[in-house]
Amino acid sequence: MNNTITQTREIHLANRPDGMPSVDNFTLVNKSLAPLADGQVLIKNLWMSVDPYMRGRMVDRKSYIAPFALNQVLEGGAIGEVIASKNNEFPVGTKVSSMLGWREHAVTDTDGLTALPQTELDSSHFLGVLGMPGMTAWTGLTRIANLKAGETLFVSAASGAVGSVACQLGKLMGARVVASVGSDEKAQLLQSYGVDSIINYKTCGDLTQALAKAAPEGVDVYFENVGGEHLAAALSNMKDHGRIAVCGMISLYNESTPTAGPDNLSLIVMRKLKLEGFIVFEHWDHYPEFAAKMSQWLAEGKVKAEQTIYQGIEQAPDAFIGLFEGKNRGKMLVKLA
Amino acid sequence: MNNTITQTREIHLANRPDGMPSVDNFTLVNKSLAPLADGQVLIKNLWMSVDPYMRGRMVDRKSYIAPFALNQVLEGGAIGEVIASKNNEFPVGTKVSSMLGWREHAVTDTDGLTALPQTELDSSHFLGVLGMPGMTAWTGLTRIANLKAGETLFVSAASGAVGSVACQLGKLMGARVVASVGSDEKAQLLQSYGVDSIINYKTCGDLTQALAKAAPEGVDVYFENVGGEHLAAALSNMKDHGRIAVCGMISLYNESTPTAGPDNLSLIVMRKLKLEGFIVFEHWDHYPEFAAKMSQWLAEGKVKAEQTIYQGIEQAPDAFIGLFEGKNRGKMLVKLA
Repeated sequence: MNNTITQTREIHLANRPDGMPSVDNFTLVNKSLAPLADGQVLIKNLWMSVDPYMRGRMVDRKSYIAPFALNQVLEGGAIGEVIASKNNEFPVGTKVSSMLGWREHAVTDTDGLTALPQTELDSSHFLGVLGMPGMTAWTGLTRIANLKAGETLFVSAASGAVGSVACQLGKLMGARVVASVGSDEKAQLLQSYGVDSIINYKTCGDLTQALAKAAPEGVDVYFENVGGEHLAAALSNMKDHGRIAVCGMISLYNESTPTAGPDNLSLIVMRKLKLEGFIVFEHWDHYPEFAAKMSQWLAEGKVKAEQTIYQGIEQAPDAFIGLFEGKNRGKMLVKLA
Repeated sequence: MNNTITQTREIHLANRPDGMPSVDNFTLVNKSLAPLADGQVLIKNLWMSVDPYMRGRMVDRKSYIAPFALNQVLEGGAIGEVIASKNNEFPVGTKVSSMLGWREHAVTDTDGLTALPQTELDSSHFLGVLGMPGMTAWTGLTRIANLKAGETLFVSAASGAVGSVACQLGKLMGARVVASVGSDEKAQLLQSYGVDSIINYKTCGDLTQALAKAAPEGVDVYFENVGGEHLAAALSNMKDHGRIAVCGMISLYNESTPTAGPDNLSLIVMRKLKLEGFIVFEHWDHYPEFAAKMSQWLAEGKVKAEQTIYQGIEQAPDAFIGLFEGKNRGKMLVKLA
């Protein structure tokens, strides 16, 4: 019945950003949809995700994931609803998650689709706390850094999609949590989560000293989202045998020229530190365990899911750029329908 | 009978080096020996060790080991012989290893002494290939980096006491070994060990490119002894899931002001790398396993023990300074008797 839809609007990468991305890097394009073939479905996207990692895909280089092609639709996490189907496993009405973001509609085979489980929760949470960012926070704390009760956890970019979950999971796991954020408004959010000590890195003065004051006992685990000055401050405050789960280094993503690293890396030897980079997709076989736990924590109110929502596909580039301007609290989303 | 010895010569730290150490930082002092108390022994040192880590102890700061005190005898690995004894477990003639280096004689309790096993090998090897440096190489490759047959290993400072053993163990473990050294003479030594590809970092031009050429398949394990440009080059050439055993960063030890780190640390995330600092003393419970294996490899000629020897306690400061000037091939030692 909805199969009268024959056009989609989608966002293309018009040119590769040099430094901070701008709206000029993107174009909104009208495109015809192919007719449904056997086995295919027509998806109407409800939500799309913008994530910092996408910045890396806008550069033409070898990485863990292929770069975005120019003048093609971008990709990313999305939640949609099947509105026409020639596939019995995905009947009309099925809510699905996919990597077919940055577009309003898609005609697609079902290989890359996951039907969402029945839940009281809004489906948008499968792009956030119950999706890739939440799974990233859980993976970093449990499988990478092995955070234990009684330890001190430091989280940077702590009000972001990943950081805000890492802080809450840290508290649930019995850690003392120190968080770094870029505004007092974000600090308030973390205060509501029961985070023990919050640093506004834009106003605190010397970050190394601020962290030493916030964690006088030293840091056992650093959940690294930022890089640069944050990594330097963390290194200087790590305890012996401290672990650093290296999730991202957002402060570096928009540097046109490479930025020198911290000058205190020899602490890795002196304090016998372990730094480990990870990509959550490689840990996805543990998603069911995570999802079961997170669903319960959400149901019990032990984890709260903060979202920042932009409206309409036209706003998707602004939402993406906003990630690097600190405009989100919690998960940054674009509502498409 | 030898207890007529009542004086020792020993090296004191006269003042703390700023930048590269010089002979002016050290003084040779004559000192009276206390008479032997019950349970004590008089040791005549045969060999003493100089090691890069000692540079860190010359700085007055908190680290994994207390700083050296000014105007006191320095400490370090030594091999000696008991020449007078009031302790039945250490009779005259016992060869012992201790941390009582930088001196010719010592009167001491026996808590910090280890009697050397009977062996055909010269006792000096217990300061090198069978001692701390050899154990460091083995620990880094096996317990930290988990090197596997068929992998590519990159070793920096590869002709040094630790690096030269790491290269040989890498070959024994079935790895392809790429080594970085600072002279063609040192390259020859490594060639004689069967190392697959050798870079003279002083003449190779761009080190990252040289390593890419030497290890076109990428690096699985980097044995880090140097820091700085070497770490940057290694990061740029690591394979996905590569491991970096961070043993030391000798290029930084004599910097008066901190030196910025590599500008490519975000590769830790993109390639899912693990960097782990370690201090061999924390792994010493595995020394018997190591010693058994290494003794056999030495007996079979599978590992060769290179040494650079300075003569006499007066030369100890020069030997130590020489470590940072690349003057040693293999283990740097001072022969005291």
